[in-house]
Amino acid sequence: MAATVVCSSSNVELVWESDPVTSETRTPVCVLGAGLIGGSLLRAAVSAGYPAWGYNRSGTAAQAEGFDVSADLPAVLRRAAEADALIVVAMPMPAVDHLLEDIATFAPHCALTDVVSVKGPVAELVRKHGLAARYVGGHPMAGTNESGWAAGNSALFHNATWAVGVDAGTHPRPWRRVVRLALDCGSVVVPVLAAEHDRAVARISHLPHVLAEALAAVGAAGGELALGLAAGSFRDGTRVAATAPDLVRAICEPNAAALLEVLEEALTLLGAARDDLRARGSLGLLVDAGHDGRTDYETVERWEITNIRPGDHNWLEQLHDAGRRGGVITRID
Amino acid sequence: MAATVVCSSSNVELVWESDPVTSETRTPVCVLGAGLIGGSLLRAAVSAGYPAWGYNRSGTAAQAEGFDVSADLPAVLRRAAEADALIVVAMPMPAVDHLLEDIATFAPHCALTDVVSVKGPVAELVRKHGLAARYVGGHPMAGTNESGWAAGNSALFHNATWAVGVDAGTHPRPWRRVVRLALDCGSVVVPVLAAEHDRAVARISHLPHVLAEALAAVGAAGGELALGLAAGSFRDGTRVAATAPDLVRAICEPNAAALLEVLEEALTLLGAARDDLRARGSLGLLVDAGHDGRTDYETVERWEITNIRPGDHNWLEQLHDAGRRGGVITRID
Repeated sequence: MAATVVCSSSNVELVWESDPVTSETRTPVCVLGAGLIGGSLLRAAVSAGYPAWGYNRSGTAAQAEGFDVSADLPAVLRRAAEADALIVVAMPMPAVDHLLEDIATFAPHCALTDVVSVKGPVAELVRKHGLAARYVGGHPMAGTNESGWAAGNSALFHNATWAVGVDAGTHPRPWRRVVRLALDCGSVVVPVLAAEHDRAVARISHLPHVLAEALAAVGAAGGELALGLAAGSFRDGTRVAATAPDLVRAICEPNAAALLEVLEEALTLLGAARDDLRARGSLGLLVDAGHDGRTDYETVERWEITNIRPGDHNWLEQLHDAGRRGGVITRID
Repeated sequence: MAATVVCSSSNVELVWESDPVTSETRTPVCVLGAGLIGGSLLRAAVSAGYPAWGYNRSGTAAQAEGFDVSADLPAVLRRAAEADALIVVAMPMPAVDHLLEDIATFAPHCALTDVVSVKGPVAELVRKHGLAARYVGGHPMAGTNESGWAAGNSALFHNATWAVGVDAGTHPRPWRRVVRLALDCGSVVVPVLAAEHDRAVARISHLPHVLAEALAAVGAAGGELALGLAAGSFRDGTRVAATAPDLVRAICEPNAAALLEVLEEALTLLGAARDDLRARGSLGLLVDAGHDGRTDYETVERWEITNIRPGDHNWLEQLHDAGRRGGVITRID
């Protein structure tokens, strides 16, 4: 891995230069699930020149747009096995166990990744089904408050970060394929351990969902007057509460342990703010902490990881350490 | 008041037809404070054809752009008194008491309104300074997470809602001037009692600030890894935490009583969600309530108030009732 230095804050777009298309780099991809994320990934892979096909319980919407999507899961998986495709699990957590069972039956030797919002529980199921040897966890940090094939688009992952697992035992070959796919979809890759990923997304993805739901509920309790007066702060603060309830639960509930920890932190902060406001009329401590936090977010700097070669001695430990310190991968040779 | 029927949800833009400019309708306006809101109001008033000038502790930035802004408050207020201007208090709550003292000294007979984020505490100070007879509270529901003259623009109030007071004792003449100014700035007017306004904005403006601060603080506690993975839900959920801390406190703290009530509601909801998640692994109750709330917000309908004439028998009660039921004023004859 070696490339030009790229630096970006969360609010600055990365200029993405894609690699030239070659048959060597664009190995087949099989996407299981054609919802917002899976459907966007299938489109992005096809746009990037990958031979790509997929499975969906109902494939008709994708088929109507010319995509190679079938509702026959065994057939889709047999084809993946024959083509030595990278299989991408792109269904919500509650569907993953059954899906892995079928993968173990029909395509047990394929490289395997996923785009599920938690990594620890998926890795556990992967081990249970004996698929760990070729598995590399993934999580593109992209989405909208919509869902389903129609909501997707091939540019969804442009300028996004894509978490890719570097847990002990990860093999370099499937790892390279997953990273290349993420990069070819326009993302930068953050190498991360499953457990650290889950604790991090509890803070910056699952807690935002929980707080948005609470805000939407309390706001709406004010009736037409309150909702009629609502402006930008309420609109933005409740945006993700428009997400389908089942999907929010499928995203957050599997990460209950980490989410409980950060929810407790939020409750402690908010409880202290309530006490301060009541006793002294002040929100100073909370507001200063929040402003500092937002400033950290706006100024966080990514730096490019270079000179760590998959398969080299200690490559997983080195990538893990770099990812924790804000490093991202933007190119892979 | 009479006009075509206008209907809008929170996400649908109103098409605004401004009245023809006449000397009768564009009476002088004097804006005290040239920050984000006051500065935008001064620009909007000038754009709409009002003779308008203002005061700011430092008037230089506005002056450099050709606006009639002075740092000499007594002179600005004497000019308002001579021109019988509508005075608009556009400074944060902590500055209001002193400002009203000067108004009582130099321009006690002018029509008076304000754009402060709470209405009850302002009305109380207005009474204390003997200025209640010509006072009509106002609050445009618009803003960004920036502040200061440079952040303002004349279109800030386009398609916004502008709360205008209809408390007992409100006089029709200043009320008409305030409503006309709000409409000429491109807003629709929601008639509201001060106390009901303050309870409503606690839900849809001040609680969003408090939750955004908590989310930003808890997110940033995850360090570079968490902030590097943060995407849309964190970005939008913490947007208003970028607001200057002093300004957030000046907005929220004067509304402590109402804010404490809704913060307690949020804490109760979140505490119950925490308990459910811990005991049963479920966020179902919270997520359903939040999704319902967001749906209510997205589908809330405004309807146009017609046939209530300022000064008619029971006009304040009728407007109050209409405002509570989602009615807005879009035109005034």
